[in-house]
Amino acid sequence: MSEAHPSADGLQSRRRRLEGLGTAELVELFGRLDSAERAVQFRLLQKDRAVAVFEDLDPRVQREVVDSLREEATTELFAALDPDDRAPLLDELPAGVAARLLEDLSPDERAQTMALLGYPEDSAGRRMSPQVLTLDEDTTVASALDRVRHAPESVETIYVLPVTGPRRRVHGVVSLRRLLVSDPEARVADLMVPAATVRATDSSEDAANVVRDGGYVAVPVVDTEDRLLGVLTVDDAMRVLEAADDEDAARVGGTEPLRRPYLSAPVLSVVRSRIVWLFVLILAATLTVGVQSYFEAELDAVVALALFIPLLIGTGGNAGSQAATTIVRSMAVGDVRTADVWRVLGRELLTGALLGFSLAAVGIAPAAWVAGWDIAAVLALTVVGVCSLATTVGACIPLVARRIGIDPAIVSAPFISTFVDTTGLVLYFSIAKLILGI
Amino acid sequence: MSEAHPSADGLQSRRRRLEGLGTAELVELFGRLDSAERAVQFRLLQKDRAVAVFEDLDPRVQREVVDSLREEATTELFAALDPDDRAPLLDELPAGVAARLLEDLSPDERAQTMALLGYPEDSAGRRMSPQVLTLDEDTTVASALDRVRHAPESVETIYVLPVTGPRRRVHGVVSLRRLLVSDPEARVADLMVPAATVRATDSSEDAANVVRDGGYVAVPVVDTEDRLLGVLTVDDAMRVLEAADDEDAARVGGTEPLRRPYLSAPVLSVVRSRIVWLFVLILAATLTVGVQSYFEAELDAVVALALFIPLLIGTGGNAGSQAATTIVRSMAVGDVRTADVWRVLGRELLTGALLGFSLAAVGIAPAAWVAGWDIAAVLALTVVGVCSLATTVGACIPLVARRIGIDPAIVSAPFISTFVDTTGLVLYFSIAKLILGI
Repeated sequence: MSEAHPSADGLQSRRRRLEGLGTAELVELFGRLDSAERAVQFRLLQKDRAVAVFEDLDPRVQREVVDSLREEATTELFAALDPDDRAPLLDELPAGVAARLLEDLSPDERAQTMALLGYPEDSAGRRMSPQVLTLDEDTTVASALDRVRHAPESVETIYVLPVTGPRRRVHGVVSLRRLLVSDPEARVADLMVPAATVRATDSSEDAANVVRDGGYVAVPVVDTEDRLLGVLTVDDAMRVLEAADDEDAARVGGTEPLRRPYLSAPVLSVVRSRIVWLFVLILAATLTVGVQSYFEAELDAVVALALFIPLLIGTGGNAGSQAATTIVRSMAVGDVRTADVWRVLGRELLTGALLGFSLAAVGIAPAAWVAGWDIAAVLALTVVGVCSLATTVGACIPLVARRIGIDPAIVSAPFISTFVDTTGLVLYFSIAKLILGI
Repeated sequence: MSEAHPSADGLQSRRRRLEGLGTAELVELFGRLDSAERAVQFRLLQKDRAVAVFEDLDPRVQREVVDSLREEATTELFAALDPDDRAPLLDELPAGVAARLLEDLSPDERAQTMALLGYPEDSAGRRMSPQVLTLDEDTTVASALDRVRHAPESVETIYVLPVTGPRRRVHGVVSLRRLLVSDPEARVADLMVPAATVRATDSSEDAANVVRDGGYVAVPVVDTEDRLLGVLTVDDAMRVLEAADDEDAARVGGTEPLRRPYLSAPVLSVVRSRIVWLFVLILAATLTVGVQSYFEAELDAVVALALFIPLLIGTGGNAGSQAATTIVRSMAVGDVRTADVWRVLGRELLTGALLGFSLAAVGIAPAAWVAGWDIAAVLALTVVGVCSLATTVGACIPLVARRIGIDPAIVSAPFISTFVDTTGLVLYFSIAKLILGI
């Protein structure tokens, strides 16, 4: 009855068919399906319907639905799908189902199963610990402590305990420390504090920043309806941030992250992490050859112009790198968001102009002494223009990249240098033509 | 009797005088001195003697020594000293004195007092929490839990408890979780595990890496004799690492860290964070003008050579940035140490040569088509040379910097680019002279 590799068409038509059925009909249908088909059809349901259906299922069938989602055959079936086909299939799984699905799995099994959950890669949902000890609001301190004492080893942390109400909704958290110093007869509801929570679909880096900025031991991870799915603990948050910083640092420097310690990485994999970008950059740099060919007459007429090319484009590249570095890092720690693009643009234009004027003011006399006042004037104007251009472009490209969904660190400092090289040359020769009348 | 601002000479001679005295004479001396003088003389003692003297002092005088170290006048007196004069005065303070000195201080007072402790800036000692709950080995679980319940609010963490023996030596740690699930009559010594500790004089970044890599909630901070001074908690470790990553990211990009959110920093302070490096780099780049002047005859003879200058030095700069970025980051996370310099050099020379050969192999035919086979040969050889040079220099300069005590991130990617620009030009023109016979 079930197809081994359902096509996207088959899925779409099945989805439409399911949408035509009422909850009672669906409950009845799920009682009859075989294991793999049950998993597929359940994941085809939109979330609110999945909640309703799951809650109406016979507990035995509920168990079977969860089991079918766990089975290796199901995982393989999902893995074989084209990612685009898989996406519509994976609306967020209801919290009750997700929590049961993830219970008692080994880390390996969990990683496998995560692919079924509908949380994007690098999301908080993929990094959370689903084994979590929750307390009811009406629990007394004494019985809460008793539950802590009998928590299985697999429960990740007992130092921060989410307090949940009906349907696993998170109402607050209480720390073990608070429990220990409180009256054994007190109600947990009177001791809890409002919880900082993160969504399972949030990026794991954003979630880790919440943990770090708040100085928390763990933060509850919830679904879109604030129902508890798990916790993100501080040690996992630190690992997420380390990996993110590794990646940012590598990409800002124009390489792919090695993902292993440098000295243990084979030289060929180091080469591989760098060659693509180096090649892209040299290809981009061929534009500079074109620009110089175009201005060959001017270059021949005033050979002295050539002397300052490396200095000018180097300065532009450096100014651009500085701006890009600042903005990429500010985005990583959450200080700057894509909506700030116009403010950043204004600030960087001003910053670049001020940097350019400062350099020009200091450098114009020595330049005049070496190459004469007319070339010094060309250089001074070019420095102001190149610095303004470089800081603005260097700061805005990462923001634009983020908005269109590219890792801002990829649009790295060397990339910006190469861009500035080309435009800087055009600016230089254009100003020279104008001032020197060549 | 006490001088307001003791000179280095005065300190040296007083130190020598103290060295001539026996413990009993010193004990007697400390009973007689006034407050400020007592603080100075006590800090002039070498650590082992300070331990001996402090332990023999009357408890009332002990208290007075600690108080005198806390007094504002003492802090001001120390702050007024030249750092070089202050250094010999500040041997590590004995753990017993340090712990008492730091107890019950407000965070502000603590920051002030830290300067007296002999821990270098950015050391773990400066970031630790001195309020820590310790357990004796012979304590039972029941009485340990009782102590936890009555721990003052100011105790930073109760989730990881150091177990200490005589003279505050750290014998292990026990987690609160372990205590909760254990037999109330069990001895703490039978439950504790060996402690990962850090030294108060370790850099705070290294110490934070220990916390992160081990996934600890807190790590005991000890003096050079393994005596407990405090704990470094995971939230403080995360803050240390964030600040360190901020600094590294900024410096690799050739700016000073802003130390505040980008959008709230005045434009002038952004300019200030960048202008110094930009100026240093443009000054270094004037070398490229010199190199090109030197080779002006060759440049005049074959004008086509000029066309490829930005492309060549840009590629060298990019290859150098990649290598520097990788090594700076590897050092930050502890994967590469200064002793690895020769291995790194060998690996990067090979990496650079492979990168250069790859680029030359792909680029030689198009280059020949544009500029002829002789110039293409010059370009190919130069690319191999520049890439090998750039990766080697880019990787080794940060290592050498660390060894001579400079922040490796300061010797930033743009700095290396500028260095490679100059040497790359020399290489380019030399190879051109040789092959083209000009």
